[in-house]
Amino acid sequence: MADIARRPESRYGTRPTMKDVAARAGVGLKTVSRVVNGERGVTPDTERRVREAIEALGFRRNDSARVLRKGRTATVGLVLEDLADPFYGPLSRAVEEVARAHGALLFNGSSAEDPDREQELALALCARRVDGLIVIPAGDDHRYLEPEMRAGVATVFVDRPAGRIDADAVLSDSFGGARDGVAHLIAHGHRRIGFIGDRPRIHTAAERLRGYRAAMEDAGLPVRDAWVSPGSTDPDRVSTAVREMLAAPEPVTALFSGNNRVTVTVVRALARHGRPVALVGFDDIELADLLGVTVVAQDAAALGRTAAQRLFRRLDGADEAPERLVLGTTLLARGSGEIAPPAA
Amino acid sequence: MADIARRPESRYGTRPTMKDVAARAGVGLKTVSRVVNGERGVTPDTERRVREAIEALGFRRNDSARVLRKGRTATVGLVLEDLADPFYGPLSRAVEEVARAHGALLFNGSSAEDPDREQELALALCARRVDGLIVIPAGDDHRYLEPEMRAGVATVFVDRPAGRIDADAVLSDSFGGARDGVAHLIAHGHRRIGFIGDRPRIHTAAERLRGYRAAMEDAGLPVRDAWVSPGSTDPDRVSTAVREMLAAPEPVTALFSGNNRVTVTVVRALARHGRPVALVGFDDIELADLLGVTVVAQDAAALGRTAAQRLFRRLDGADEAPERLVLGTTLLARGSGEIAPPAA
Repeated sequence: MADIARRPESRYGTRPTMKDVAARAGVGLKTVSRVVNGERGVTPDTERRVREAIEALGFRRNDSARVLRKGRTATVGLVLEDLADPFYGPLSRAVEEVARAHGALLFNGSSAEDPDREQELALALCARRVDGLIVIPAGDDHRYLEPEMRAGVATVFVDRPAGRIDADAVLSDSFGGARDGVAHLIAHGHRRIGFIGDRPRIHTAAERLRGYRAAMEDAGLPVRDAWVSPGSTDPDRVSTAVREMLAAPEPVTALFSGNNRVTVTVVRALARHGRPVALVGFDDIELADLLGVTVVAQDAAALGRTAAQRLFRRLDGADEAPERLVLGTTLLARGSGEIAPPAA
Repeated sequence: MADIARRPESRYGTRPTMKDVAARAGVGLKTVSRVVNGERGVTPDTERRVREAIEALGFRRNDSARVLRKGRTATVGLVLEDLADPFYGPLSRAVEEVARAHGALLFNGSSAEDPDREQELALALCARRVDGLIVIPAGDDHRYLEPEMRAGVATVFVDRPAGRIDADAVLSDSFGGARDGVAHLIAHGHRRIGFIGDRPRIHTAAERLRGYRAAMEDAGLPVRDAWVSPGSTDPDRVSTAVREMLAAPEPVTALFSGNNRVTVTVVRALARHGRPVALVGFDDIELADLLGVTVVAQDAAALGRTAAQRLFRRLDGADEAPERLVLGTTLLARGSGEIAPPAA
């Protein structure tokens, strides 16, 4: 190691080649190639000499060059919104397990909810010739991927659909889940219910807001402008929204929070509030069971697994029109969603 | 898209080449290469024709082939224990941000705490010629990486040190953090303190157990065998350990849990228990603040950032002996660690 550190200029290009192995073993290049690739026609004694030379020199086959020659790279790119968001952990792991079962390695990156960064990352992965891409889109125009898809990059969108192109998408039922969650609050007697969600240009956020409005409309309840607060998931923004809805002349008696980031802040804000306020959140969160937070849970691992299976079916040549697969959500009643409104 | 789906056999090898661009633009191959690589010596009119042909054909430079020719791939491999573990989310994201600042893409994979899978993944990444590797080791013998490191793969270990080789490592102070956490319980009057941790062959788990023993010894307190329970983080295993320690003839009055996976189960088990039991956990967990769980927090993002910065300094030719960098931990007192023992 110290030896390497002393020769930084020689960091690259010092790998032994097949030629070095051939020279050391005293055999031809073709013989080394046969041993490395497990082909026939080499005597046991020659094979042993080649293997000893490989071991002594630390030779390793270059898989990148090999797969490039074959036209397939056995790599898959996964463009997430944020590697650090706990929602994407189980999704990534599920994609990895499917990729691993197909002998493929996984590139992983975050768009940070920035459409330009999503495009930059997706195209950088295509330029590295990934066989397939799984994208959680930040943007709403994916025509930039059309040349890649035409050139053979299998592409599946997950969590949110593609924009302006026809492509496979695996989604949770954001509309239905939010509608069920809000209907649950209505069933427990609430009439004034607030919605705090992510920016409405995000497909899931818009769908969940639509689900909230549908549940209110189904119950014949009005929705006041002051009860709807879409925007960033920044804790200050969300805390202020909670405070304002609870301090209004007609305060809400229940809240529906649009995703895990929002729910965490709402739970904190309600803990500081004097009287109990009902809450249902979209997305489950670790330890939410112990805090008694009722949630509409989606199955992040199933999203990732389904998307990856779809991707590899495409790579195996599946001849199917693009599909939108929608996975159901589960309402987990734990207490916060079952709090009754204060007696009027 | 439907067009592609109908020709699965032509999925590969349909990408337009530089030759196609040259033919369409009516120029030579060298001219196309100059435009693509931003070199001089092309008239504006010719450049425009080449760019139109590139656009019309959907040509994209193959970065993998290009970087392979240069001897550097601008890719970094990150071998984690589990992509789904929330501890590794911020760590991965921090590595990604440093890699991105250096124009590199990130391969990501899980060892699932299996030394063979760690080796398989690390060598597969080397065979794809990553420039560098960041490894959270599952195994304790990394001599298999020596030929790769000699060949120039910069390698930094994070969270846990390498085994049997001399290599850079960025660690949290597991020993000191655990000792401080247990000393905190002792300072609040506890004499019988249980330790529930991960398998002791994991370096961090062994270090935290050592920290527990040191704090007990510093206070002149005995450690009974029944108070020490290392093993898997499986919820059943951990719940049983909690139950047994609380039901023993000399029951513990406080617990120290060795990592986030263990703490989650201990918190659940204690919530079912009749009387309050003090708890300090290693690792912070989302919402632990609201549950009043006292923890010894490590900075996962700082671990990832520091390891990645070290990696790129090596790749930039830094001429330094391998180092072990140890980051401090922070005790966050939130209530559970400040519960007094029951009056004897």
